[in-house]
Amino acid sequence: MNEKEMKDFSAKLMQESKTACFTTIDKNGYPHTRAVFNLRNKEQFPELVKIFDAHKEDLLIYISTNTSSSKVAHIQSNTAVSLCISDPENFRGLTLGGAIEIVTDKNIKSALWLDWWDRYYPKGKEDEDYTILKLIPKTVEVWYKGKFKFQFT
Amino acid sequence: MNEKEMKDFSAKLMQESKTACFTTIDKNGYPHTRAVFNLRNKEQFPELVKIFDAHKEDLLIYISTNTSSSKVAHIQSNTAVSLCISDPENFRGLTLGGAIEIVTDKNIKSALWLDWWDRYYPKGKEDEDYTILKLIPKTVEVWYKGKFKFQFT
Repeated sequence: MNEKEMKDFSAKLMQESKTACFTTIDKNGYPHTRAVFNLRNKEQFPELVKIFDAHKEDLLIYISTNTSSSKVAHIQSNTAVSLCISDPENFRGLTLGGAIEIVTDKNIKSALWLDWWDRYYPKGKEDEDYTILKLIPKTVEVWYKGKFKFQFT
Repeated sequence: MNEKEMKDFSAKLMQESKTACFTTIDKNGYPHTRAVFNLRNKEQFPELVKIFDAHKEDLLIYISTNTSSSKVAHIQSNTAVSLCISDPENFRGLTLGGAIEIVTDKNIKSALWLDWWDRYYPKGKEDEDYTILKLIPKTVEVWYKGKFKFQFT
């Protein structure tokens, strides 16, 4: 795969896969990997497709989480993360790596907000426990009929 | 969930889930998460069920990989790993943490060997590129109708 093919493959897999595992590193240097929503999945999050359509090239992804979560605590001392999106049935997968940011822009948080998330954040999009993380990947690894890798410059 | 319930839940989910994501840390301190076979999945690996039946309490897991893989390279300088096994459709997941080992016991490697793995290791169970990793978890986190955590002592 060349870089264009890898980006196309990645954008497509991110739209199709329900499985996303996100890793942060704790203050003792141990990794912690847990399942998170793949907000790029178009079946599960059709309202957000437009937002991500502008990011087919850079593969940006947002992750929703509780401000009180271990993710946010870990990121505050170490921004290095890994996100794996996979389709184990078809032996397809990708891993994004880079430094993650906590989004402070209320417009972005509002644009991503979905009403049914009030089960996680009872006070709605203004809830202090509602956090959005933003990863603009620096590295992408792809598994599909081989292993491929590229770095964003 | 108490400790017994967490162990039972974990052993069951490990038998049922096809999705396993495994994280190692590279020499620059960046985590790398990728999909791996869940060798405890009883549908995909029925031949191995007996091996893991002896480990319902300690939740031991083996991971098969190429000796030439990034996993093995990372583990040689940092044994801290995380393994996430999840069932995103049913909002169930677990994360195992601890220090991983490279198995040198040929009996264990032989007992785990499956003939169809010759597509990955052409020389069979004696292939130098066939590596088995062993994780005896120190921490377990469980997500199912809440979040639960325990540490093995």
